[in-house]
Amino acid sequence: MLRTHTCGELRIGDVNKEITLTGWVQRQRDKGSLLWIDLRDRYGVTQLFLEEGKSEASLIQLARTMGREYVIKITGIVAERLSKNDKMPTGDIEVKLTSLEILNTSKTPPFTIEDQTDGGEDLRMKYRYLDLRRTTVREGLQLRHKMAQQTRLYLDSLDFIEVETPVLIKSTPEGARDFVVPSRMNPGEFYALPQSPQTFKQLLMVSGFDRYYQIVKCFRDEDLRADRQPEFTQIDCEMAFITQEDILKTFEGLIRHLFKSVKGIDMPSVPHMTYDDAMKYYGSDKPDTRFEMKFVELNDVAKGKGFVVFDDAELVVGICAKGCASYTRKQLDELTEFVKKPQIGAKGMIYLRCEANGTYKSSVDKFYDEIELSRWAQKFNADAGDLILVLSGEKEKTRKALGELRLHLANQLGLRDKNKFAPLWVVDFPLLEYLPAGQAGNEEMGLPAGQAGRWHAMHHPFTSPKPEDMGLLDSDPGKVRANAYDMVLNGTEIGGGSIRIHDRATQQLMFSKLGFSPEEAKKQFGFLMEAFEYGAPPHGGIAFGFDRLCSLFGGADSIRDFIAFPKNNAGRDTMIDTPSTISQEQLKELSIDVKIK
Amino acid sequence: MLRTHTCGELRIGDVNKEITLTGWVQRQRDKGSLLWIDLRDRYGVTQLFLEEGKSEASLIQLARTMGREYVIKITGIVAERLSKNDKMPTGDIEVKLTSLEILNTSKTPPFTIEDQTDGGEDLRMKYRYLDLRRTTVREGLQLRHKMAQQTRLYLDSLDFIEVETPVLIKSTPEGARDFVVPSRMNPGEFYALPQSPQTFKQLLMVSGFDRYYQIVKCFRDEDLRADRQPEFTQIDCEMAFITQEDILKTFEGLIRHLFKSVKGIDMPSVPHMTYDDAMKYYGSDKPDTRFEMKFVELNDVAKGKGFVVFDDAELVVGICAKGCASYTRKQLDELTEFVKKPQIGAKGMIYLRCEANGTYKSSVDKFYDEIELSRWAQKFNADAGDLILVLSGEKEKTRKALGELRLHLANQLGLRDKNKFAPLWVVDFPLLEYLPAGQAGNEEMGLPAGQAGRWHAMHHPFTSPKPEDMGLLDSDPGKVRANAYDMVLNGTEIGGGSIRIHDRATQQLMFSKLGFSPEEAKKQFGFLMEAFEYGAPPHGGIAFGFDRLCSLFGGADSIRDFIAFPKNNAGRDTMIDTPSTISQEQLKELSIDVKIK
Repeated sequence: MLRTHTCGELRIGDVNKEITLTGWVQRQRDKGSLLWIDLRDRYGVTQLFLEEGKSEASLIQLARTMGREYVIKITGIVAERLSKNDKMPTGDIEVKLTSLEILNTSKTPPFTIEDQTDGGEDLRMKYRYLDLRRTTVREGLQLRHKMAQQTRLYLDSLDFIEVETPVLIKSTPEGARDFVVPSRMNPGEFYALPQSPQTFKQLLMVSGFDRYYQIVKCFRDEDLRADRQPEFTQIDCEMAFITQEDILKTFEGLIRHLFKSVKGIDMPSVPHMTYDDAMKYYGSDKPDTRFEMKFVELNDVAKGKGFVVFDDAELVVGICAKGCASYTRKQLDELTEFVKKPQIGAKGMIYLRCEANGTYKSSVDKFYDEIELSRWAQKFNADAGDLILVLSGEKEKTRKALGELRLHLANQLGLRDKNKFAPLWVVDFPLLEYLPAGQAGNEEMGLPAGQAGRWHAMHHPFTSPKPEDMGLLDSDPGKVRANAYDMVLNGTEIGGGSIRIHDRATQQLMFSKLGFSPEEAKKQFGFLMEAFEYGAPPHGGIAFGFDRLCSLFGGADSIRDFIAFPKNNAGRDTMIDTPSTISQEQLKELSIDVKIK
Repeated sequence: MLRTHTCGELRIGDVNKEITLTGWVQRQRDKGSLLWIDLRDRYGVTQLFLEEGKSEASLIQLARTMGREYVIKITGIVAERLSKNDKMPTGDIEVKLTSLEILNTSKTPPFTIEDQTDGGEDLRMKYRYLDLRRTTVREGLQLRHKMAQQTRLYLDSLDFIEVETPVLIKSTPEGARDFVVPSRMNPGEFYALPQSPQTFKQLLMVSGFDRYYQIVKCFRDEDLRADRQPEFTQIDCEMAFITQEDILKTFEGLIRHLFKSVKGIDMPSVPHMTYDDAMKYYGSDKPDTRFEMKFVELNDVAKGKGFVVFDDAELVVGICAKGCASYTRKQLDELTEFVKKPQIGAKGMIYLRCEANGTYKSSVDKFYDEIELSRWAQKFNADAGDLILVLSGEKEKTRKALGELRLHLANQLGLRDKNKFAPLWVVDFPLLEYLPAGQAGNEEMGLPAGQAGRWHAMHHPFTSPKPEDMGLLDSDPGKVRANAYDMVLNGTEIGGGSIRIHDRATQQLMFSKLGFSPEEAKKQFGFLMEAFEYGAPPHGGIAFGFDRLCSLFGGADSIRDFIAFPKNNAGRDTMIDTPSTISQEQLKELSIDVKIK
């Protein structure tokens, strides 16, 4: 190594040692008689100094030619600092230079290499290699590294085998759009990049691998919403000879291991909640349970009192904001505006103030007297000083809107602390959801466009229905529950999985319910259905979104700083400038042509 | 779990326990009064039995309906075996069934699930999920898992950070052909799949990551020779602030750690050999050093004696096969035929037998007397009973041919023992090699076709020349040595790397030597050259071919059984039937058209 120590390593015990360091010039302070240099590497920052009259003149001269981000190698003697800096691990010492070599110069970077940089997103992405020098970004990737290592350690300890599944696979229209890869050796044919290794991990179970995992890149050619990436990473797992309860226990164990080993947090066991309860009490299949504010239904106390909005509503439901009775008219109006936004979709909002003096003040005072309003308050166990907010209307829509209001309010109230973590299992998801014609993707499925909507697998077509609900599959498909589960953390889905179908007959039935013709099902998934005929064991699994999991552990909103080289919302990497055109020769070899409308 | 134990777990200490097992029916033996079943899972095989008169009749009846590969769940009592089987870890016990549940049936598999199967390659690939049930294949993948884990443990312990680099990158014509991916969101533009994360890992060094690794999928669209795969896995590493010696030490450490932790072998330190010596003594840049048989040059003793073939030859060089003087005429003729094959290319072969009685017998007796022949023998330190084989001609060709003969002979003599391991560093590779016009790939480089050949980077264009050889770059480019090294194991290159160029001027010079126009170099690698201007540290790295490394550790010739789902030589996965056609809608969305000549 060109160095004897790293820039994060020297302590008071090293005083008087001769050492050699390498790194980047973070900053220099030139006081004339004294010249300080902060030298940075991945491991930390060490202060160097030169003293007019005591240090060699040529050294001082050379040091004065250096700019920010020069790469240098220095030798010097470790000295105790006069004024120590207890914010830096190396803050007790500094190094008196005896030699200095410039290993490489640097132009002035286009933005400052500091935690709070002056560089905008676009500039930082174009010069991502400089952005990655910033401590916050580097620490994000170090956290990711640690998460990956600890995930592997945990799963290894439980006899999971890491198996690499192929990246060049087969395009299937179910699900999101595939990225495809033309095959030069097979003209006119294409590989697809995997959206997940789903079928391969199921085949590994048929093979008897028993416990599989992989931290694996997956690909989806979707229009990129904020914070989506065309390539993303999953912790992908599958187990055989298990029940749903085994999977939940195993992966609750994983998440608790990660909290302990990476964050030092002793996480209690992860609660379970049914999908129906999640919708009923939080209006979401991924409730943020860092705070309570559960929904309370008011149909029995709010209907039949002459307030026609409630009387006509399928559901009257509210939340209680503790201590918010003092909200001003303006604040309440802002909340009403919020719920009336088109993407929230409520028609209006009713409030009930539980005043400090024990009286009630509501926007619907003329329909409800004090006693009636007190019954509302009782339902919430509301105290004097609390504020109750009520929405009404069609059940699903109203729940969804109230769920959004709950989160909005919690953000305002600071209830969504990034350093607090509330994982949750949501279980018993519906097997199917109905997509109206416009969203059903009929064409991709090889079905006539414009026909009626269709039932779509909520999780994916390999998820098993609950045996006790099988009878409903024809009569009331929406009521059939699946052996499917999500892990939710702080209101974000971080993982999801299911117990799979493992016999051909059920799988074939499922494909037909989803609108696959027998030919299409065979063409796309024939190998899997055939595999089910050669001794497929009961099995199930889960996949975690690793990028998101890392960002949540890092307390960040965006996944981008937990990915070394992310793409922007147009799917571009502006640093290397891709995607880009390729040559005519390449196209010819691949038997394809560009054809832009 | 559906089971209390695995099929590899029960021992004599478990006798009389009631246990539940799950697994596959490996075989049944029905003796009428007694019925034995071998139950298999990933962990082993356990013998089950049923006894007419003692076991429930319905159980026996059900068991008799089962075929091979049925998936079952059984409960029973562990009993001591009368005749123990010390070849099985569970061979001391058997399980007396008390209940039996068929979890899934199985059709008769198309080949036997045994180590020595009756299935041919094609059939096994089509039913890979059944092939993977075979113990040998599963153990290959378990070995791979262990290799990956131990690689990570070792590199982690040295502060390497695992960073995922992108899969959707940019096509560059240097090197092999890229797989490309049309971008729907950027019509007419394409991503490429990485042939290696080379530029990204160098950028991570510019970013100060200091030590990077990744076990990563890479892609090459080459015509597949036997045992090549379009997607393959590398252990990819890079370090900053190092010398070549640091890299060699670090990764010698890795290979020794793998031998120790995976194979239980204490590997002594890995010897170094220059490229020149490898060519001179073994005729190969990847010598198999499990055995000696080094080349001995005979120009001084063989030339000038009137044998015109040697007199006209640039090089006369031979090997000594210990104890082979008794080779028959037929055996010698076979060796002569071997070296005369077009792919070997020698014109003929001379032999010298060191007879047991101390005399010499050669095919060129009439040109050399006993004393002259004894001088040959002395050069080889040959003993009575040894056989010397000599080739001659143009230096490089002759060395290559003799290198092939050496391996051929060693195979015959059983000197290439798969359980013996001889790693080796080959260092000081040439920087450049000259490719004649036909092989130079001028068109891909945007150069006029049919122009003269060109100098090509032997390793890759980012490899640094040895500073002391820089003066030869114009006068004698072929003589310039690179800071490049390969790790060779048993005659196979398992890894290679180099100290990189880290300044723009040298990198630009190198691109121009390789025939890039300044515009082309900028278009393809502008981001890297720009990065070199912002404080790039000295750095270097290495990549190991992980599939091959695993197959060598597994003592296998082919990499295929160390890859879960390999592709055949036409790049097809016959199990999932890919590549395949995609729909017109998909093509339209991607702004491409199929155009087959």
